[in-house]
Amino acid sequence: MKRNFDKEFQAIRDQVHVMGIQVERAIGHALAGLTQRHSESFKRVYDIEQSINQMHLDVDDRCLRLLALQSPVAANLRLVVGIIKINTDLERMGDLAVNLAHNGSRYIKEPALKPLQDLPIMAKEVQLMVRESLDSFLQGNVELARTVLSRDDEVDRHKNEIFRELVDKYMSVDGTTVNRALDLILIARNLERIADHATNIAEDTIFVVSGTDVRHGKRAIPPSGAPKELDK
Amino acid sequence: MKRNFDKEFQAIRDQVHVMGIQVERAIGHALAGLTQRHSESFKRVYDIEQSINQMHLDVDDRCLRLLALQSPVAANLRLVVGIIKINTDLERMGDLAVNLAHNGSRYIKEPALKPLQDLPIMAKEVQLMVRESLDSFLQGNVELARTVLSRDDEVDRHKNEIFRELVDKYMSVDGTTVNRALDLILIARNLERIADHATNIAEDTIFVVSGTDVRHGKRAIPPSGAPKELDK
Repeated sequence: MKRNFDKEFQAIRDQVHVMGIQVERAIGHALAGLTQRHSESFKRVYDIEQSINQMHLDVDDRCLRLLALQSPVAANLRLVVGIIKINTDLERMGDLAVNLAHNGSRYIKEPALKPLQDLPIMAKEVQLMVRESLDSFLQGNVELARTVLSRDDEVDRHKNEIFRELVDKYMSVDGTTVNRALDLILIARNLERIADHATNIAEDTIFVVSGTDVRHGKRAIPPSGAPKELDK
Repeated sequence: MKRNFDKEFQAIRDQVHVMGIQVERAIGHALAGLTQRHSESFKRVYDIEQSINQMHLDVDDRCLRLLALQSPVAANLRLVVGIIKINTDLERMGDLAVNLAHNGSRYIKEPALKPLQDLPIMAKEVQLMVRESLDSFLQGNVELARTVLSRDDEVDRHKNEIFRELVDKYMSVDGTTVNRALDLILIARNLERIADHATNIAEDTIFVVSGTDVRHGKRAIPPSGAPKELDK
């Protein structure tokens, strides 16, 4: 039974790993479409999202079967429930990458509004958060999960700066820029939301590995029953 | 064992029901704060969100214990995993209600931009979706769940109209309206996102009750193993 669990769980982990790589690729293609004004790149995002959706259903199905057939408890139970949640986050990230492609393809139909250095930098940070959050889960690395949590503030700061510049320098000054500036604002917001899902994964990782609940920055539910101190 | 499961599961259901009511209330207070320009209402949203967060942790904890102690299979397993997912959706809805309050309290610091009839109508529809999605789950009512799915298009249509009016009649014409119009746009978007979470709950309900997977509008995983035709 134990070996069956390990083998099947390893297969599910591998699939989740691939989903994470696909999310990173989808973000990359969406940003390439935007900065290189290349609509073919957006089509690749839609294709990738389809494959993420398929894997999402498969992973969910496999986790349900694993729970039913193996009735895992303690750490293994937390692992499977953790994967079910992470799977949902990855699927939403795929949806958000499609939003990026949607706003990006609308944006490039009009003349460029401004040089785009800030959004690609923000996107790189978000891709890093996706990778590190998945790695933290797959390696059971709580330290790395905490790094992901700390990066989220940086991403928020980036988004606010992008937002502020577009409102103050463009939208408030010249009404003809509103639609394009709004597309860029929505792209920044969707990137931020992908980062939020990476944060969820990092929080789930900390819970799965240490049994410590850092969600809502408060309560601890260690598996032993005795509450632990939290970093924040 | 069976009776223990039923009793504990009933308690978890009751808690999830309360969470849904709290989400509806939070939306109501956020909109009251916006339309009546009443900042105290926003504070109530923050308080409600705190209580939703606490219930979120409790429900998650209880579901994990239920899986560990009772090892449910088949329909009961789908129910518990369904609750785990719905619990996440409800918690996010609470976050989004806080976003509504955040944008609303910023909006009312400036003079009113326009009469607000459209956002309260949209909010009422979203509250209805929240209630019906929860009811569909709690009653195991697939028909009601499908009603929720159909309402989502109406909410999207509303959001697009609100968006369009604010861009075309205000932001593009008068730069001094940009910040306020943007707040209203973000409120519409956050309402839409709450509706998306209600849609998730409705889809999970259909899966839990019928074993039919309507997510991604495609694959069916009936519990019997034989694929079924889907409505869409």
